[in-house]
Amino acid sequence: MRLVTYRDNTHQRIGAVQDNNVCDLSALAPDMLALIEGGPALLERARTMIADAATPCMPLASVELLAPIPRPRKNMICLGMNYAAHVYEAQRARGRPEKLPSHPVFFTKNVTAINHPGGVIPYDADLSTQLDWEVELVCIIGKLGKNIASDDALNYVFGYTIMNDISTRDLQVQHQQFFRSKSLDGSAPLGPWIVTADEISDPHALGLRLRINGATRQDSTTGDMIFNIPNIIATLSRGMTLEPGDIIATGTPSGVGLGMQPPQYLKPGDVIEAEIDGIGVLTNTVVAEHDF
Amino acid sequence: MRLVTYRDNTHQRIGAVQDNNVCDLSALAPDMLALIEGGPALLERARTMIADAATPCMPLASVELLAPIPRPRKNMICLGMNYAAHVYEAQRARGRPEKLPSHPVFFTKNVTAINHPGGVIPYDADLSTQLDWEVELVCIIGKLGKNIASDDALNYVFGYTIMNDISTRDLQVQHQQFFRSKSLDGSAPLGPWIVTADEISDPHALGLRLRINGATRQDSTTGDMIFNIPNIIATLSRGMTLEPGDIIATGTPSGVGLGMQPPQYLKPGDVIEAEIDGIGVLTNTVVAEHDF
Repeated sequence: MRLVTYRDNTHQRIGAVQDNNVCDLSALAPDMLALIEGGPALLERARTMIADAATPCMPLASVELLAPIPRPRKNMICLGMNYAAHVYEAQRARGRPEKLPSHPVFFTKNVTAINHPGGVIPYDADLSTQLDWEVELVCIIGKLGKNIASDDALNYVFGYTIMNDISTRDLQVQHQQFFRSKSLDGSAPLGPWIVTADEISDPHALGLRLRINGATRQDSTTGDMIFNIPNIIATLSRGMTLEPGDIIATGTPSGVGLGMQPPQYLKPGDVIEAEIDGIGVLTNTVVAEHDF
Repeated sequence: MRLVTYRDNTHQRIGAVQDNNVCDLSALAPDMLALIEGGPALLERARTMIADAATPCMPLASVELLAPIPRPRKNMICLGMNYAAHVYEAQRARGRPEKLPSHPVFFTKNVTAINHPGGVIPYDADLSTQLDWEVELVCIIGKLGKNIASDDALNYVFGYTIMNDISTRDLQVQHQQFFRSKSLDGSAPLGPWIVTADEISDPHALGLRLRINGATRQDSTTGDMIFNIPNIIATLSRGMTLEPGDIIATGTPSGVGLGMQPPQYLKPGDVIEAEIDGIGVLTNTVVAEHDF
């Protein structure tokens, strides 16, 4: 299933996308987090519901999609430096020696950074002139777990979606730790939907790419991750409880603006499409802060 | 006021500590976050309530205190390297050149890391043998704000409390970014209560210290912060919305285990007291993971 959170007039609802329609699942759970917490039994009821001709559906184009989890219960966990070619492009750009990480590099993006499919990414030149893009495969945790074995880890994944990990490279240098430079309001576009795990037979065999105004900037495969999803979940859950609804972004491949020669960054009016095979396309536009 | 979250039998309640009693404020708000969101008007009702002889109070010793915010709505924001002597002790221990940060260094601790006054800090030698202590002054944000001016910043502070920012120095090196090494379950003891901002005339004139089994390890003053609270709030809120209930830990002074010669770390049975003048003492015990 492709699970969405959407706004229908003023009501926020959850639903499933079927062909070009959204079928309303709000009778099952008040929001996506509650649907995820409902586990396999509730997901099965969702399947039954969308197969039922009596379930109300409406054209996808007629609703406003929101981030599938519009308000996570904790920061989104992200990996830095998880694709070798990206590690090298960043280190070259910074004039640092080329070296791959020996362990996954985890940081977080603030809850308030969440942005929606089609949402506007604020551009404020007084704050940062080095706004950069990063397409990433996201896995959503489906059940409570701690000290999860890597060979059991994929059983903890509820589904997958896309994040564009918008980053400010100037603030990233100033503040050293990544949190602030990656947590500006609107810097975490998420979506357009969660594809449930049963529909992604191998999360490490997905093409992922990013286009700016139609020009391809990133084009890689999730098979190039340094630390794969089972490894990420096993490492992260060692000593730290993971919960249903946790959002883990698995890092970005090469092709970011920082790595271009010379570096090239986002500017107002840019349309960014972050795409992952088997999931879809997440589109956002950069808009000058004073224009909204 | 000294505001607490506590457990009375199986009920979680909020209250105010008066002398050696806790007076129940649960009629005003279901939890601390709701009380904070109620703003000055609700806080005034709390004052009236505890002055009313009809309000039920019970001995502080008879209740179980919880972290004043037992389940924050986002990760706790923390500063690294915000006291010069601590920056230098850490850099010397790591064999790095001594250099103060030019901008505040922000990272986060996971929501699940929250621990309670008197709570047990898990020790798992298979995961980390370099469990370290860090006493920190915490400010709790009281109202929504973005791009807050530094000279207006203290108006956004609801109150103050203490965090012991338990850190694993081995994981900190392995994972580079601080998030994972500072987010193990139980690694964020918080409390024992929130002292409302009106009772702290100058948050930069507070002695803070930490004792292990009675021996003083940290002993400094919040006046030694490199970036003070107005600066922290102004910087952090630039482009990023702060919300009521946000928890900001302002960094630790020198005297951590990493800085000792040779380094010395926590071990099962250690009793840690983190103390800040005008707030109180936050006490926690280290217990081997297999013992609970």
